Amino acid sequence: MKKAFAGLGLYLAAASPAFAGAVEEMLAADTAFAKMAQDESVPAAFAQYAAEDVWMFPEGGDAYQGREALVERFSTWPDGANLEWFPQEGMAAPGGDFGFTWGRYIFTANTDAAAEGENVGYGKYVSIWRKESGGWKFVADIGNSGPSPE
Amino acid sequence: MKKAFAGLGLYLAAASPAFAGAVEEMLAADTAFAKMAQDESVPAAFAQYAAEDVWMFPEGGDAYQGREALVERFSTWPDGANLEWFPQEGMAAPGGDFGFTWGRYIFTANTDAAAEGENVGYGKYVSIWRKESGGWKFVADIGNSGPSPE
Repeated sequence: MKKAFAGLGLYLAAASPAFAGAVEEMLAADTAFAKMAQDESVPAAFAQYAAEDVWMFPEGGDAYQGREALVERFSTWPDGANLEWFPQEGMAAPGGDFGFTWGRYIFTANTDAAAEGENVGYGKYVSIWRKESGGWKFVADIGNSGPSPE
Repeated sequence: MKKAFAGLGLYLAAASPAFAGAVEEMLAADTAFAKMAQDESVPAAFAQYAAEDVWMFPEGGDAYQGREALVERFSTWPDGANLEWFPQEGMAAPGGDFGFTWGRYIFTANTDAAAEGENVGYGKYVSIWRKESGGWKFVADIGNSGPSPE
């Protein structure tokens, strides 16, 4: 599946040569971000890739701003819960310094705590990225429910 | 309430002078977009402000791309339903040609058709904007549930 996603990115790049580099870079950043969430932890990955002035839009909750607030919220990430995501496509600013990626996610709740049949959620997300001196950081993150990625 | 929102925009502009113009312009576009939805119709406003290559992320559904597909989807907008939204803040690309606004929305279903107590939904949204020759157009739109804007 990851090969298919990479292929989509290349197709997009071919279709929009002027912004190809930025779209490829953002998809690569999102892919590395997703990998870090699995290899290390979801909170560690969000802390690593968030910009200082990031805006977060948690489903069901209010918007909040700031990497520091994000780290605090994610500090209560439950043991056994997982958020896995699969970048799909992206679009870049004409200036090449900003843009977004979108993809699909699977959220698996802590199965010990979750009620039967309520332990998996599917959806899609949009991450907005800004090119900084240290690489691409996301400046906004929002998702909502959707069909299974399978 | 609209005065308070305008005030937030001005504060942001003062805090980020380099991108002030773009943030102000996007908030103005989003405000005009929201006004058109009330003065004319929600489908007319979405058709007017969408970029040709817009990405849409409807809650519960799959992502889709294209202004033409958007117009077709919104052609079945039910009589009596309303989507009202209130732009809050924004962030612009360093290049000033791209960025996003976010705000809160109130969705009111067709009250004749809706079950008692299920006719109003609250949430927040992110609209991503690109500066085009004809003005700012949104290139992505996504929302999710959240607290009441009141």
